[in-house]
Amino acid sequence: MSRLNMPHWLEKSFHPKAWNHDSNWMGYVAVSGDAETERIGCRDVLVTWRGTIAPTEWLKDMDVRLEHFGGKNSDAKVAHGYYGIYTSKSEDTKYNQLSAEDQVLEELKRLIPFFKSRGEYVSLTLSGHGLGGALCFLTAYDAAQEFPDLPITVITFGGPRVGNKPFCEKLKEKKIKVIRVVVRHDIVPHLPGIPFNKKLEKVENLAESWHGLYTHYGYELNLEVKSSPYLKQMFDLVGYHNLEMYLHLVDGHISSNGSEKFREDAKRDVALVNKWSGMLKKETLVPSCWYQPAFKGLVCNKLGRWVIPEREPEDVPPPPGTHVPLSVFN
Amino acid sequence: MSRLNMPHWLEKSFHPKAWNHDSNWMGYVAVSGDAETERIGCRDVLVTWRGTIAPTEWLKDMDVRLEHFGGKNSDAKVAHGYYGIYTSKSEDTKYNQLSAEDQVLEELKRLIPFFKSRGEYVSLTLSGHGLGGALCFLTAYDAAQEFPDLPITVITFGGPRVGNKPFCEKLKEKKIKVIRVVVRHDIVPHLPGIPFNKKLEKVENLAESWHGLYTHYGYELNLEVKSSPYLKQMFDLVGYHNLEMYLHLVDGHISSNGSEKFREDAKRDVALVNKWSGMLKKETLVPSCWYQPAFKGLVCNKLGRWVIPEREPEDVPPPPGTHVPLSVFN
Repeated sequence: MSRLNMPHWLEKSFHPKAWNHDSNWMGYVAVSGDAETERIGCRDVLVTWRGTIAPTEWLKDMDVRLEHFGGKNSDAKVAHGYYGIYTSKSEDTKYNQLSAEDQVLEELKRLIPFFKSRGEYVSLTLSGHGLGGALCFLTAYDAAQEFPDLPITVITFGGPRVGNKPFCEKLKEKKIKVIRVVVRHDIVPHLPGIPFNKKLEKVENLAESWHGLYTHYGYELNLEVKSSPYLKQMFDLVGYHNLEMYLHLVDGHISSNGSEKFREDAKRDVALVNKWSGMLKKETLVPSCWYQPAFKGLVCNKLGRWVIPEREPEDVPPPPGTHVPLSVFN
Repeated sequence: MSRLNMPHWLEKSFHPKAWNHDSNWMGYVAVSGDAETERIGCRDVLVTWRGTIAPTEWLKDMDVRLEHFGGKNSDAKVAHGYYGIYTSKSEDTKYNQLSAEDQVLEELKRLIPFFKSRGEYVSLTLSGHGLGGALCFLTAYDAAQEFPDLPITVITFGGPRVGNKPFCEKLKEKKIKVIRVVVRHDIVPHLPGIPFNKKLEKVENLAESWHGLYTHYGYELNLEVKSSPYLKQMFDLVGYHNLEMYLHLVDGHISSNGSEKFREDAKRDVALVNKWSGMLKKETLVPSCWYQPAFKGLVCNKLGRWVIPEREPEDVPPPPGTHVPLSVFN
C-alpha cells in the first residue's frame, strides 16, 4: 500500500505505538455461521472493504487515469487510484508483501473450495462504503474470474464510479448482481470526473485517453435526505456521505416510487446518525460526532500521569499468513 | 444571575435535564482540615470562583461602565458587568433568591466566627481564573469590610482589571495581599478598556464618565510562554488564557529576574496543558482538548439505544440554605 498518492489516513498509522507505520486495516472476510447459513439458504462469504469517512477532497484529487484491469489485452479499465490501493505491495515491510488483492484472493481460494467440497451451496457478498465500495467491484471481478459459477453480490453505500464501460460490461457478463445505495446529495457517487452520458459516448473515439469516461453499473437504490424527519435539511458535503446516515435512510426507506415518507416503525437507533456527523436536528438533543473515547484515549497511570495506553493484545494483527483454522466450521 | 448581558454559558445550563435552567455553579467555599491547618499555621478558609475558559470575546463586549461598589458615597467603582454577576438575584427561581455576594458572605459569617470562637488563627484566601479572579476582588473587599482584622489573600490567574484607582486604594488600605499571576501574552489581564497610565490620570477630571479608567492592584507574577520547552511558540488567543497552561508555567517558574529557563524538576503532568487547549507541541503526542467524556456523555441503555443518562444524585445541588454542618470540625 505504499508509494502511492494516497490519503494520509490510509498511508500511515498515526498511533505512536502503531503495530506498523506503513500499513493499515483495509478489510475483513467473514463467513456465515450454521444458523445464518440455514436461514439464508447458503453459506455466504462476506468481504467488506474499509470505507471513507470524509474523503471527498481526496477522491476529487485522486489519480483517475484509466488503467487496464483483468489483463493488458482487456479493454476493461479502472481508475489508477483504486487499482493502486488494491494491487500495490512492498518488499520492505512485513505486512505488505502481499497486496490487498493477493490477500483477499488467497482467503477466498481457501474458503470457497472448502465449503463447496462439503457439498454446500456457497455465495459471495462484497460490501463497502465510499472507497470501499469501489474496491468491492475489483474483488467481484477477480472472484468471478476465479470462480465462474459463484453467485456474487455487491452492495455499496455511496460508492464512486470505478471503471469504464467495458469494465461494467464485463461485470454484467459475469452476472454479478449489484445494488448501489446512493443518497441523492452525496457527491461521491458522482466521482471521478463527470457523468458518462450519451453525448460523451459519441466523443469516446476522439478522446480515448480522456479521464472522464467512467460509468456506473448495477441497480441504484436512491435515498432522499428529506425523507427523514430527524435530519437537518441543509447542505453538508461530508454529512451526506456518512455511512450511518445511509443506514438511517435505508432503515426508513419505504419505496423508490417517489415516496418521501419515512417508515414509521423504523427500528435503527437514530442517535447513531451523529456518531461521526452533525446531521441530526437540534431537537433530537444528540451531540454531533459523539463517537469518541473518554479523554481521547489517554488513561491516568499509577503515577497519576495521563498517558497513551499500551495496545490491547487483540488490537495487534497476527503475523501475515495466519488464518482462522477451517476446523472451526466442523 | 439573570437579566444581565451575560455569556450564554453563565446564563443558562444547556444540559436537557439541568437541575435549573436559570442558574449555574459559580463557586465553592472550603476550609483547611486539621492536618493542613497545622502545616500552614492557620485555619484557612478558601473561596474559589468559577473561571472562564475562552471568554475573551465576552470580556471584550462586557458592560464596562463603572459602578459604585461599597456604598453609593464611595468613589470606589468596579465594572458593571462583574458587579451584576456578583450581586444580581431573582425572586422567580429557587436557587437565585440570594445573590452570589449574599451567599458567600452568609457562609463566611458562619465559618469565620466559628473558628475564631475556638481560639484559632483564621485566614481567608480567594482564588479564581479569568472572570473568577475579578470576583475574588469583590469578595475580598466585602470580607475586609465585614472582618476588619482578618488576613486576606487574593491569588488570581489571568484576571482582568476590576475597578478604578480608588477601588484599588481601598484594597490597599484594607491590607489585602494580592498576587496576580499573568502570562505575558494573555489578553484578559489587559481588559477591560486600555491600560491606565500617567497620561490618562491627567485627563481623569476631564472625562469622569469615561470607561477606560481601570487599574490593576497587587504583585504581578509574570510568566512567559517561551520559558516552557513543551509549549508551541505560536499565537493562540484562547490558549494563552488557559488555566492549565498557567499552572504549567507556575510549575516551571524559576524567577522573574529575566530568566526564561524552565525548572528541570517541574512535577506537574505536562499532558494536563492540553486538557482544554492545543498548546502542547506535536512531539509531546498529547491530543488537544482531550478532557472529554466517552461518547460525549451518551450511554447505551438496556434497549441498545444511545441516550443522555440520568443525572447522578450528587450532581444535583442541595436546596438553598443547606450547609455542611460545622460539627464536622469537632
